[in-house]
Amino acid sequence: MKLKQLGEYKLIERLLKKPQKPLSLPGIKTLVPNGDDASVLSFSKNNLVFTTDLLFENVHFSLDWDKALGGRKKLFEALGYKSLAINVSDLSSMGCKDKPIYCLIGVGLPEKIDVKDILHLYNGLSKVCSKYGIQIIGGDTNSSAVLTIAVTVIGTVKKNNITRRSGAKPGDKIYVTGPLGDSAGGLAILLGKNKKAKLQPEINNYLINRHLYPPVLIKNAQKIASRAHCMIDCSDGLINSINLICWASKTGAIIDTTKIPLSKQLSAYSLLTNTSALDYALYGGEDYELIFTSNKTLSNYFCIGEITKKGINYQTNGKNFEIKNNKTYQHFK
Amino acid sequence: MKLKQLGEYKLIERLLKKPQKPLSLPGIKTLVPNGDDASVLSFSKNNLVFTTDLLFENVHFSLDWDKALGGRKKLFEALGYKSLAINVSDLSSMGCKDKPIYCLIGVGLPEKIDVKDILHLYNGLSKVCSKYGIQIIGGDTNSSAVLTIAVTVIGTVKKNNITRRSGAKPGDKIYVTGPLGDSAGGLAILLGKNKKAKLQPEINNYLINRHLYPPVLIKNAQKIASRAHCMIDCSDGLINSINLICWASKTGAIIDTTKIPLSKQLSAYSLLTNTSALDYALYGGEDYELIFTSNKTLSNYFCIGEITKKGINYQTNGKNFEIKNNKTYQHFK
Repeated sequence: MKLKQLGEYKLIERLLKKPQKPLSLPGIKTLVPNGDDASVLSFSKNNLVFTTDLLFENVHFSLDWDKALGGRKKLFEALGYKSLAINVSDLSSMGCKDKPIYCLIGVGLPEKIDVKDILHLYNGLSKVCSKYGIQIIGGDTNSSAVLTIAVTVIGTVKKNNITRRSGAKPGDKIYVTGPLGDSAGGLAILLGKNKKAKLQPEINNYLINRHLYPPVLIKNAQKIASRAHCMIDCSDGLINSINLICWASKTGAIIDTTKIPLSKQLSAYSLLTNTSALDYALYGGEDYELIFTSNKTLSNYFCIGEITKKGINYQTNGKNFEIKNNKTYQHFK
Repeated sequence: MKLKQLGEYKLIERLLKKPQKPLSLPGIKTLVPNGDDASVLSFSKNNLVFTTDLLFENVHFSLDWDKALGGRKKLFEALGYKSLAINVSDLSSMGCKDKPIYCLIGVGLPEKIDVKDILHLYNGLSKVCSKYGIQIIGGDTNSSAVLTIAVTVIGTVKKNNITRRSGAKPGDKIYVTGPLGDSAGGLAILLGKNKKAKLQPEINNYLINRHLYPPVLIKNAQKIASRAHCMIDCSDGLINSINLICWASKTGAIIDTTKIPLSKQLSAYSLLTNTSALDYALYGGEDYELIFTSNKTLSNYFCIGEITKKGINYQTNGKNFEIKNNKTYQHFK
């Protein structure tokens, strides 16, 4: 069978099918095994959180984007920044503390890349490190056909703050930390789609920045975690995230599409280009906002729906909103 | 400047030039920072060891090797096995305990790869996991242009057993755990070099296996660590390893080339193909035997020389043996 027929999610299901018996050793426990946004091991009193995420040229980004960004320096800095920020996002979604965070950086570098480019990439990484107090503790440099950035991050979490995908309970409100769809809008611009529309540079820049500089919500996540039952980061679009929560929690959900936060820039862009802002939010990916459920009313965040016993329903003004499942993103498909 | 002009080692030097201040937090210490075979952090009483290593198609392996190996199943199992084994090798060289060991597996999968191939790859990984009691705690699956395997491993170490590259002392004997050069011989066969020689299948198989199934020396490493001043794994050939030890320890070394252990299969292969077994050991890579220094006499291992105050000299029967530095391996060069 070809990967294309199976798709990413079914492949992961197959790979996780043979569950491993967690190591049993005095003082060491597996609190969250492989399969969530990150895993958690407890070593005596320390609960360590581990996750890894890779970025590949021509899959996650293109080196041709230098033109849209005004040069290679900006592009490589953004790639460095993003590769680490998206990993920290997985720590956030587990309710991780903001300190300490450690990372390992593996890269594959094609010959066409200049030494200067690599230094810019590491500058981008360093920016995240300085801003959030992250320490680099290892790495690996290799030649490769396409630019590849493989990051692993390690953090710590209070046991009571661990927010797994599987913790959602019927009756919980579903919250989002910020506007969705911006990143997919930015990607569309970078890919040169909708060229005919007269675009406004400030809208372009805002959306492109949202694609390349995902939010790092580790401080917010800590506050959220003590009140949330479940948390995930919105890396593959809202629909995929809601599916994953409901699948892991064995629940349903009802989403009010009119409550999904959309930025005014994305709304303006979709008007200008005759595309749907809501589609970007639902099917697009890489927003890296946090989606969480709680039985508390949290007015700082956007409540977009509720966890139910079963079935996933999207509604607009009380009427069913039909989801086009073939529009959701997954690798290989 | 192009990567080719700078080379891997100088690039790493540049990237490590801006040293980060290690995070300072109550109960958490950086015992070995970025730059060694692996880094070590202490969390209360637990000293955790972290390292990452990537394998790229057409750099570290070729999918065409299926013919030489008798099918894709054998090839993908070997790639899975090797990708994890070489990471455990870095833990070994830090004097890590054999339990617990955890790993995260990130992959980039091109469309041409079949789902069956991936399951074989994970079978190869699982073999190392079962054999050495390693638990998978995370991963990431992506599409990519070339098959990519990014592994991060985590282990623990007794503080007194940490064996850094920088610990060698003048007067120390230099030891190797097993024969060198086999892996480079196996690689030459896989690359279809020296085809004209009438090769013997059992020699071929032995050398190819030494290339694809590197030794996992984590149990030996624990015993060695309590007696060694310094340890490194032989991943880029003997010369590179000795250079790294001497550079980190600010010492010199004298190596007796006649004492470098060579397998009878490699000797036979080099006779048959009119190549130099010693060259494979010195310049070839990926043997993943351990190289360590100690002031004790350890008759279980191969003593190949001694640490000196300065200068690195190779001798054969008391005469200087000239090293061809352009033959040593490094990425980009």
